[in-house]
Amino acid sequence: MRSVLDANTVREWGERYSNWGRWGDDDERGTLNFITSGRIMNACSIPRTGRVVSCALPFDEHGPQSGVGGRYNPIHTMLADGGDALAGAQDHFAGGFRFAEDAISMPLQCGTQWDALAHIYYDGLMYNGRDIRLVTSRGAKANSIDRLKADVVGRGVLLDLPRMRGCKWLDDGTAIMPEELDACAEAVGVTIESGDILLVRTGMMTRCLEQKTWRGYCAGPAPGLSLYCARWLYEREIAAVATDTWGVEVRPNETVDCFQPLQMVCIRNTGITFGAIFQLDDLAAACAEDGNYSFLFTAPPLPITGAVGSPINPLAIK
Amino acid sequence: MRSVLDANTVREWGERYSNWGRWGDDDERGTLNFITSGRIMNACSIPRTGRVVSCALPFDEHGPQSGVGGRYNPIHTMLADGGDALAGAQDHFAGGFRFAEDAISMPLQCGTQWDALAHIYYDGLMYNGRDIRLVTSRGAKANSIDRLKADVVGRGVLLDLPRMRGCKWLDDGTAIMPEELDACAEAVGVTIESGDILLVRTGMMTRCLEQKTWRGYCAGPAPGLSLYCARWLYEREIAAVATDTWGVEVRPNETVDCFQPLQMVCIRNTGITFGAIFQLDDLAAACAEDGNYSFLFTAPPLPITGAVGSPINPLAIK
Amino acid sequence: MRSVLDANTVREWGERYSNWGRWGDDDERGTLNFITSGRIMNACSIPRTGRVVSCALPFDEHGPQSGVGGRYNPIHTMLADGGDALAGAQDHFAGGFRFAEDAISMPLQCGTQWDALAHIYYDGLMYNGRDIRLVTSRGAKANSIDRLKADVVGRGVLLDLPRMRGCKWLDDGTAIMPEELDACAEAVGVTIESGDILLVRTGMMTRCLEQKTWRGYCAGPAPGLSLYCARWLYEREIAAVATDTWGVEVRPNETVDCFQPLQMVCIRNTGITFGAIFQLDDLAAACAEDGNYSFLFTAPPLPITGAVGSPINPLAIK
Amino acid sequence: MRSVLDANTVREWGERYSNWGRWGDDDERGTLNFITSGRIMNACSIPRTGRVVSCALPFDEHGPQSGVGGRYNPIHTMLADGGDALAGAQDHFAGGFRFAEDAISMPLQCGTQWDALAHIYYDGLMYNGRDIRLVTSRGAKANSIDRLKADVVGRGVLLDLPRMRGCKWLDDGTAIMPEELDACAEAVGVTIESGDILLVRTGMMTRCLEQKTWRGYCAGPAPGLSLYCARWLYEREIAAVATDTWGVEVRPNETVDCFQPLQMVCIRNTGITFGAIFQLDDLAAACAEDGNYSFLFTAPPLPITGAVGSPINPLAIK
Repeated sequence: MRSVLDANTVREWGERYSNWGRWGDDDERGTLNFITSGRIMNACSIPRTGRVVSCALPFDEHGPQSGVGGRYNPIHTMLADGGDALAGAQDHFAGGFRFAEDAISMPLQCGTQWDALAHIYYDGLMYNGRDIRLVTSRGAKANSIDRLKADVVGRGVLLDLPRMRGCKWLDDGTAIMPEELDACAEAVGVTIESGDILLVRTGMMTRCLEQKTWRGYCAGPAPGLSLYCARWLYEREIAAVATDTWGVEVRPNETVDCFQPLQMVCIRNTGITFGAIFQLDDLAAACAEDGNYSFLFTAPPLPITGAVGSPINPLAIK
Repeated sequence: MRSVLDANTVREWGERYSNWGRWGDDDERGTLNFITSGRIMNACSIPRTGRVVSCALPFDEHGPQSGVGGRYNPIHTMLADGGDALAGAQDHFAGGFRFAEDAISMPLQCGTQWDALAHIYYDGLMYNGRDIRLVTSRGAKANSIDRLKADVVGRGVLLDLPRMRGCKWLDDGTAIMPEELDACAEAVGVTIESGDILLVRTGMMTRCLEQKTWRGYCAGPAPGLSLYCARWLYEREIAAVATDTWGVEVRPNETVDCFQPLQMVCIRNTGITFGAIFQLDDLAAACAEDGNYSFLFTAPPLPITGAVGSPINPLAIK
Repeated sequence: MRSVLDANTVREWGERYSNWGRWGDDDERGTLNFITSGRIMNACSIPRTGRVVSCALPFDEHGPQSGVGGRYNPIHTMLADGGDALAGAQDHFAGGFRFAEDAISMPLQCGTQWDALAHIYYDGLMYNGRDIRLVTSRGAKANSIDRLKADVVGRGVLLDLPRMRGCKWLDDGTAIMPEELDACAEAVGVTIESGDILLVRTGMMTRCLEQKTWRGYCAGPAPGLSLYCARWLYEREIAAVATDTWGVEVRPNETVDCFQPLQMVCIRNTGITFGAIFQLDDLAAACAEDGNYSFLFTAPPLPITGAVGSPINPLAIK
Repeated sequence: MRSVLDANTVREWGERYSNWGRWGDDDERGTLNFITSGRIMNACSIPRTGRVVSCALPFDEHGPQSGVGGRYNPIHTMLADGGDALAGAQDHFAGGFRFAEDAISMPLQCGTQWDALAHIYYDGLMYNGRDIRLVTSRGAKANSIDRLKADVVGRGVLLDLPRMRGCKWLDDGTAIMPEELDACAEAVGVTIESGDILLVRTGMMTRCLEQKTWRGYCAGPAPGLSLYCARWLYEREIAAVATDTWGVEVRPNETVDCFQPLQMVCIRNTGITFGAIFQLDDLAAACAEDGNYSFLFTAPPLPITGAVGSPINPLAIK
């Protein structure tokens, strides 16, 4: 390990662990390309019980957002409801037909989400060498989330670090090293393979839910992947990685002079789709119960044209 | 067949094809209960190629909404973008870290969607005998879409009626009869089973996309399921049904004195989750190509607390 | 004074201080009818300096809302901006024309506001005997804010209670009695007249701004008008009344068995338009400076069709 | 008059009719500075009848927006309503207290509006030489609408061109020349003065409302001020100018190689606040009735922090 991690490390590793051009100059899917149809077939053969577990946190006003970066929790409003029926406002619908409808307003990054490859960039370029001028008020013209509309289906693997360590949750500031990811996989008899979708549980959300406060969850100190995982993610050919935290990587960042360095390297250079705010407690319980930490995993984004992220409801089929 | 279909028919059939109490008084999942873990295991064994096809229409300002019922197309706005980086508005992020974020405002019924069982009701009650007073401005306290957060995973079956009939699309006003659903399934060698998720393609969306106009798509005349399908859906134990139209059933309605009678019976009494505005063209092409009209199908809603519907990205895994 | 104020008092006083029918059965303007054209002419003759003072709190994310009642602070987003120009996203506009545009999402009650007469009701009826069934998800069909589109222009009077009492702000829970309103007016040489628009400063907002926290501002304990002011407001023929607090009246409420009793009587029965979250510090300073506590006052709501309130920018012209 | 108007004209006239620095380098109010307190006092002495006329178009889904530039009509939703009361959703409020609340989502440029001086720019600079980098996704840091929170109060003058010409409305493409503005003012006995707020009625909105279609209203051909008015507006020291059209100036533009040249010169260089989508029919009728085309005019924007425009309810007090 290096004595110092800094912005130079980010640029150097960014170049070293780059997948630019690997799948052609037009590619906008990044490491999701590792999920070949063969791997999807393999993933379909994993389920043993037919049990389905959701990894989504409910989308509502009690979500984790507290205003950091202008993000807010979902605002759900009714456009028609049972009260309207009682008030006679739907009496013009013949035969007693009555109905409810609703609407939502939310940042696409407010809850359980995938980040598009247009989400993070530096030095004027994003994944596959595309200019950030492509991302304006009218949306992203490249690397947007809609490019992944038939994606994020494959083998999922849960790495449950608190269970591995025998604690309820990792402390804030805990950097998860590649060796620990390997050890955790090995401990539950899983071999990480090319194209795997990795779910890393830190227990941070467990703590927030148990203590009934999201204080510090967004942008505060948090356990998470070390910048050293950049190489590991690249070499293992991980297709996507998600955690139960706000930003996947450890905070405070290991680089004093660089904000969110792992995202800089992995999203921009390696082209890995990052997921955040995953609710992994139910899945952890299910895996502990049946001893099986790999599963068929489906988590397609909503194809919102030009978006740089999407709320999702990721499912593990065990 | 009856000589007249009317509001009385709706009440009578509603009672006859009711599943209230079938899965307990607390049930909020309706016919999704037919999808047992065994059926999910069977569905996982269907894929032959590992090909994934999305059934979602892009979510953007070019969607089908034109203001009917206060519905509008998604409004996508950027909260941070590449232009901000150019303008120096992100210079306070150390190490050159730059990013884009965004938000959406949309009716939950504006695009590819599932309706919750709280979406349609009559005579003061919704599915499983619940009072419509439970659905107010603060959302639905029962039968809401979040109850289905680990649901809508199973065997999907596409019934491609235009292909069956040898036309590009069914004419507006075409009522699809149960016999035709059977014939269509038989023609492609599929036997409808309990717990199947049924996708019925009418070609209406194909026409709108080809003619580049959504005029009439929302609430206008449309091909769709006949009210006679209520019995068929009930007896075949269909778990969920979706079409490429605005409202699943034929329009103008077969009941002069009743608006959307099939929804009244199926959603409220039978407890079937309805899907609308599915983009089934890509799936139809894929099925025609490989001759396989059944597939593993996953289409979980976003668990928006208290919502009566959800935008979705339904995937067929073939 | 009564020994006990309760829900019975509210009904009794509601009947006693009612203006239902006073301006005809069709009236939707309530006590704003007291502002005759003659009074407007008089008000125009008040200004001595031509100085204009705004009573609006800035509309932004730093507003007082904290989620109480589902209210949130304004969400301001850019639809086009200078960054777009830098990124070349506006290059299709000829001749170098570049522009910025934006949007807002906000509860109409989130900041400086007028409440419509459709805002508060009890026993199934609102102002002028209208059924609350007229207020549904599609808006208010009567007593809505748009009915006041050419209204709230007249003589304004500031009653600056902290200045009168020689303190920075009134303590939470302080009930302001009618006698104090009279004394305060008299002290600054103003005679309250029919059709006056009354601005009552408690200093609560001053405290929040000085202490840099809105904690408790919304729905918490607060200084405000006593229920005993109901008679006074009615008899003095006040056209509209506003304060620098969340809800005009004292909190905790003087009626244990009744929430916001003054609003119940005044808005529903007397038909007085209430204003809240007014920023009265600048105006208080201006009045203290020139010794003139009456002024020409204009504060028309935005005519949002069917709305039950409106954000406003009230101006005092001195 | 020149033989050709083009982008060069815009730059040249922009320099010639510039007010940059006129009120100091910090100025963000532009020509509103012409409205001195003395002029406000004069304006207050104008009213003869105490009649108030609103110049706002209702803010609702029937507004003029059709999607041009991503603009949409206001979306008004209820957060609480009478139906909730009927459904018992407000039963936890003691004493029978019941209420309605609502929210709005709208582009700030969707209806009757003022444009901030940060709305239009070219060559990287906006009014008073400020860099467009100040206008990003987080709003405008200078020349924003909130800077005008105690502004736009003064003498208003209506120039009713259709009445002057004896027609119902001006044809699309009609360029209004400075001479006609003078003639129109003279015809009704008004002398244009420094600091006047000018309302120019073209009748285009009258036509749209009468023909019940907004087709072409936004960004289509329209009557409006000629680019030749730039000098006139500058020399007459007009404080603000508004019309009943989408964009104040004539369309198609008189400059083939330049979009909205009058806005480029007047907003960026002269620093004039432009208003659009004013409903001037009621005011025109009132002025015709009493023969008085000047009035006390108040139209403050909502002080939305960092916004580049604001919906308004402009009032003429006659």
